[in-house]
Amino acid sequence: MIKITLPDGSVREFVHGSTPIDVAKSISEGLARNVISAAFNGATIETSTELTTDGSLILYTWNDKEGKKAFWHSTSHVMAQVLEEKYHGIKLTLGPAIDNGFYYDVDFGDNKINDADFKAIEDRVLEISREKHEFKMRAVSKAEALELYKGNEYKTELISNLEDGTITFCDHANFFDLCRGGHIPNTGIIKAMKIMSVAGAYWRGDEKNKQLTRVYGISFPKLKDLTDYLELLEEAKRRDHRKLGKELDLFAFSQKVGQGLPLWLPKGAALRDRLEQFLKKAQKKAGYEQVVTPHIGQKELYVTSGHYAKYGADSFQPITTPAEGEEFLLKPMNCPHHCEIYNTKPWSYKDLPKRYAEFGTVYRYEQSGELHGLTRVRGFTQDDAHIFCTPDQLDNEFKKVIDLVLYVFGSLGFENFTAQISLRDKENRDKYIGSDENWEKAENAIINAAADKGLNTVIEYGEAAFYGPKLDFMVKDALGRSWQLGTIQVDYNLPERFELTYKGADDKLHRPVMIHRAPFGSMERFIAILLEHTAGNFPLWLMPEQAIILSLSEKYENYAKKVLELLENHEIRALIDNRNETIGKKIREAEIQKMPYMLIVGEEEEKNGTISVRSRGQEGKGNVTVTIEEFAKIVNEEIAKTLKTFEV
Amino acid sequence: MIKITLPDGSVREFVHGSTPIDVAKSISEGLARNVISAAFNGATIETSTELTTDGSLILYTWNDKEGKKAFWHSTSHVMAQVLEEKYHGIKLTLGPAIDNGFYYDVDFGDNKINDADFKAIEDRVLEISREKHEFKMRAVSKAEALELYKGNEYKTELISNLEDGTITFCDHANFFDLCRGGHIPNTGIIKAMKIMSVAGAYWRGDEKNKQLTRVYGISFPKLKDLTDYLELLEEAKRRDHRKLGKELDLFAFSQKVGQGLPLWLPKGAALRDRLEQFLKKAQKKAGYEQVVTPHIGQKELYVTSGHYAKYGADSFQPITTPAEGEEFLLKPMNCPHHCEIYNTKPWSYKDLPKRYAEFGTVYRYEQSGELHGLTRVRGFTQDDAHIFCTPDQLDNEFKKVIDLVLYVFGSLGFENFTAQISLRDKENRDKYIGSDENWEKAENAIINAAADKGLNTVIEYGEAAFYGPKLDFMVKDALGRSWQLGTIQVDYNLPERFELTYKGADDKLHRPVMIHRAPFGSMERFIAILLEHTAGNFPLWLMPEQAIILSLSEKYENYAKKVLELLENHEIRALIDNRNETIGKKIREAEIQKMPYMLIVGEEEEKNGTISVRSRGQEGKGNVTVTIEEFAKIVNEEIAKTLKTFEV
Repeated sequence: MIKITLPDGSVREFVHGSTPIDVAKSISEGLARNVISAAFNGATIETSTELTTDGSLILYTWNDKEGKKAFWHSTSHVMAQVLEEKYHGIKLTLGPAIDNGFYYDVDFGDNKINDADFKAIEDRVLEISREKHEFKMRAVSKAEALELYKGNEYKTELISNLEDGTITFCDHANFFDLCRGGHIPNTGIIKAMKIMSVAGAYWRGDEKNKQLTRVYGISFPKLKDLTDYLELLEEAKRRDHRKLGKELDLFAFSQKVGQGLPLWLPKGAALRDRLEQFLKKAQKKAGYEQVVTPHIGQKELYVTSGHYAKYGADSFQPITTPAEGEEFLLKPMNCPHHCEIYNTKPWSYKDLPKRYAEFGTVYRYEQSGELHGLTRVRGFTQDDAHIFCTPDQLDNEFKKVIDLVLYVFGSLGFENFTAQISLRDKENRDKYIGSDENWEKAENAIINAAADKGLNTVIEYGEAAFYGPKLDFMVKDALGRSWQLGTIQVDYNLPERFELTYKGADDKLHRPVMIHRAPFGSMERFIAILLEHTAGNFPLWLMPEQAIILSLSEKYENYAKKVLELLENHEIRALIDNRNETIGKKIREAEIQKMPYMLIVGEEEEKNGTISVRSRGQEGKGNVTVTIEEFAKIVNEEIAKTLKTFEV
Repeated sequence: MIKITLPDGSVREFVHGSTPIDVAKSISEGLARNVISAAFNGATIETSTELTTDGSLILYTWNDKEGKKAFWHSTSHVMAQVLEEKYHGIKLTLGPAIDNGFYYDVDFGDNKINDADFKAIEDRVLEISREKHEFKMRAVSKAEALELYKGNEYKTELISNLEDGTITFCDHANFFDLCRGGHIPNTGIIKAMKIMSVAGAYWRGDEKNKQLTRVYGISFPKLKDLTDYLELLEEAKRRDHRKLGKELDLFAFSQKVGQGLPLWLPKGAALRDRLEQFLKKAQKKAGYEQVVTPHIGQKELYVTSGHYAKYGADSFQPITTPAEGEEFLLKPMNCPHHCEIYNTKPWSYKDLPKRYAEFGTVYRYEQSGELHGLTRVRGFTQDDAHIFCTPDQLDNEFKKVIDLVLYVFGSLGFENFTAQISLRDKENRDKYIGSDENWEKAENAIINAAADKGLNTVIEYGEAAFYGPKLDFMVKDALGRSWQLGTIQVDYNLPERFELTYKGADDKLHRPVMIHRAPFGSMERFIAILLEHTAGNFPLWLMPEQAIILSLSEKYENYAKKVLELLENHEIRALIDNRNETIGKKIREAEIQKMPYMLIVGEEEEKNGTISVRSRGQEGKGNVTVTIEEFAKIVNEEIAKTLKTFEV
């Protein structure tokens, strides 16, 4: 008998040679049907692998990342089989699973794969799948492996780098492939498959090597999953923040200014400002104080903070001065500057906490190939703040920050999120700085605060920063995609490095603790995610313009201006479209601009002192004619649905 | 007879050999009494110099800069005479007039000058002055000059570098000095003199040379002028923005962050923000749109703009990236970025003007020795905007900018200013870019706009930027010192370099004109000047805190909090001092913090729902007991005195 430990910690005994499927069956038939991959003592195995020692076993289904990986990797075998059938003399190289599906890099030789071929390949993959071929691993000697791949220089190179005795192939149907394992039980569960695209890819990613053809595919256990996925992709394309940013005139890039350095156009700058004012207002209530610091600092500053040693070589390089031999760096973070602000004065425990906030623009070098719209940039503005408090205050301060983060998420319509608590690696405490006592205080502060606030949490050991534990918020957007947004971190390191002190009740000097926090994360990334989450239909309070006044003709310009003035008195942001265009065209353009309300004014409205209100996307429905006061009430009620007042 | 042209353009005839004093007498006896220096054909001469050719003559009085210069230079002769009398064997070197007074660099040999000696020297200077010695120039041969200064290696060096036949001495009483001229008629008008300080100074400013003693002095034609001047100096010291900035907790510098890079502390950041919001609000009304651009740009951007060629070598040096060989620069100005924003879209003449505004932080290298508080820094935030308009719109746009600048000055209590119109050098048009037609349009736009707005103007030819004419506002502060604040510039250059276009009514592409403008100039410099102008007693609307609630004891904390909340409802910014300190101490500290209103709350106030109001600096007067509503009315009335609404 062998002892198998399951993820819940339970230990069960099984006959020597039992397979993961046997273990699944012992739990439930349903589980056995759904298990498609497994890991034993941390290593991926087949579901049919016979277990011969004690150990811990994890069973994966389609719902697990590992399950999907096995599913997609297995499908890549079947696709490779079909490609070999269809294109004679091609050479297979590597075909791994990726985040969304899989690919196979193929040397097509004289052949060429076209979009028009995809359908036939997909059909054949599904035909083979329906035959329920089992995936079976077998050991192969190096000599035999080289013999079997004679003429395929790619596989030959791979095999040459492997040690004899460690080489395995995977067989299914009449197809074999050099493979390390990790497959679904058989091809039968592949019910839907699609080739997504083909692209060029150098062998082993090196542009000095031959260019191969990378065939991207994806597969699912249900046809409905595939159609849902394709719809999601379409929707994601429609919501791509780079596309919306252009359509809504929010931001732009200039090759002359530099890639990854966004230029915020008037409407985008107004949107940013609105978000900033919103957070500033809440932060003011929560006792934060705004500060302003420069975008550069002497290299020495980052040597002190430790950033230079850690990131210096891979960052924007130092700025020198003509005569004086000084060296400055673009600031990659605001914390060193805030520590220096703290250090401008002696503090007593009675003065703490000090909460310094800054919408601080920082610059971090990213390779140009890594840049992507607003989510991966070289310059971005953090909604940064640093709280300097006594260890005794940490618990309460942390809770207050959570309140603020939850308030921010709520006001912006992010209702679906989990909080990841990142703690020390229990086994390896040496790599963290600070005393055990402080770590325990800090970790407990986070755990208690998260529990106290009823957060949906996941604990990850070993994911803490070296200077302290943290809490990261993972937000799901409207398309179900997960984004890391706000972060709250506890730091014992910088107070040490910058020799920060306060005088305690005991009249002695003590080190404060620091909390780093950014509910948005960065303005750029947050706005990108918000754009994709809302498709540009921001909460009403946030819209750069909440209404547009559309005049039926230029005759009503004066009345339109009067309406605008009245709206401004009600603090409603609006603008006028008084162009000599048809009302239909004006409405269409206002829809593209995502205007929440279109206020049509013509003869009737001018006579009665009213406006004819049309909401965004209300096609086909009639307009409502109301007075400005009534409209202001509608707007304020709509705003009150999402934007609450922050209560400390 | 000779023909003398006077500054007003009139030409008069005089007898050959007439002196400037003779010319003055021919105008009026009063003028003759007051003339203390003169310039003939652009060169300084004595008031007793005989004129022997036709030419243009300027007569200077104490009220002219040149008059003061002659006055102070003459006094330095008398001081040197006294020093020689008093300290035997000393060696005189050079003794010029400076902006405020004069100095003489002296090798005191074995002697030493002490603060205690100053009074005796000053008395002796005035004694000699009362003897009304005339200053008389005479030509001396090189040989004689060297003989007369035998043993004085400094004067010997100076004489050696002069050509024989050009060497002159100035005599008065029994004292002579190597001198190029420019004196008052006689010592009699020196009525007050003070030695300000002594300092070390290397001979000819070279630290390899011997260190001399620099004796700083100042003198005046009236004793009252001296006492006024000393009082002004004391007041300027009290108002030094570096001192006030520290006392009021507005900003700080950190050696680690870097010199010339201010850190804005919470109260200073709030002050900045208030100024920014004030200007943003007015700018919004005036049709400006805020944008946000990065603090760096590719070197290429500044090559295009021309800044790199002009300033590159003397600036912060380029920032490189680790792998990609890119070069970025800290932005020294925002205009190239705004041009790139303009270029993100095609424009029609109907879309113009576009007015892009940004509180843009720029970085410019200054030698560390040049840095001074907030007035000379290495990083500062411009209240920048660029207006892109058609040539036809220029006139009107320029007027609108003047309106905005005047509004800003008015709201901040700067009532005393002149506007300098800087035009092309008429004789030398080649050094300017752009067509004559455009220049004329632009110059006329400025001249007309300034006249139309009734500005007190000075025209300076040859002071235009090479890319266009400009209007600079010179503001006098409460101490009568002049500062250059806002600037408005017309630019034909950048639109050309960035190939900016708009489609005209003729359907062809045209170049827009740009206006650069910054009413404050920079936030740093403006706040420094405002601090010195107001001594920290800002206009009420601008104060970070408008009132402080001082509780008579900790018992009244709850009532203090209630008062705070009510004040906040009235949008009055206040804070509470609820410390366990005496009310006297609290008031004293609030005075130092320049709190406009102190609201004292105790038993009586809590009972009646009132506050006991004390204004800043009202020492000795009784407090006024009012309700919160009454107090809000007082505050709003006070604010309305300076802060008007900007009307377009």
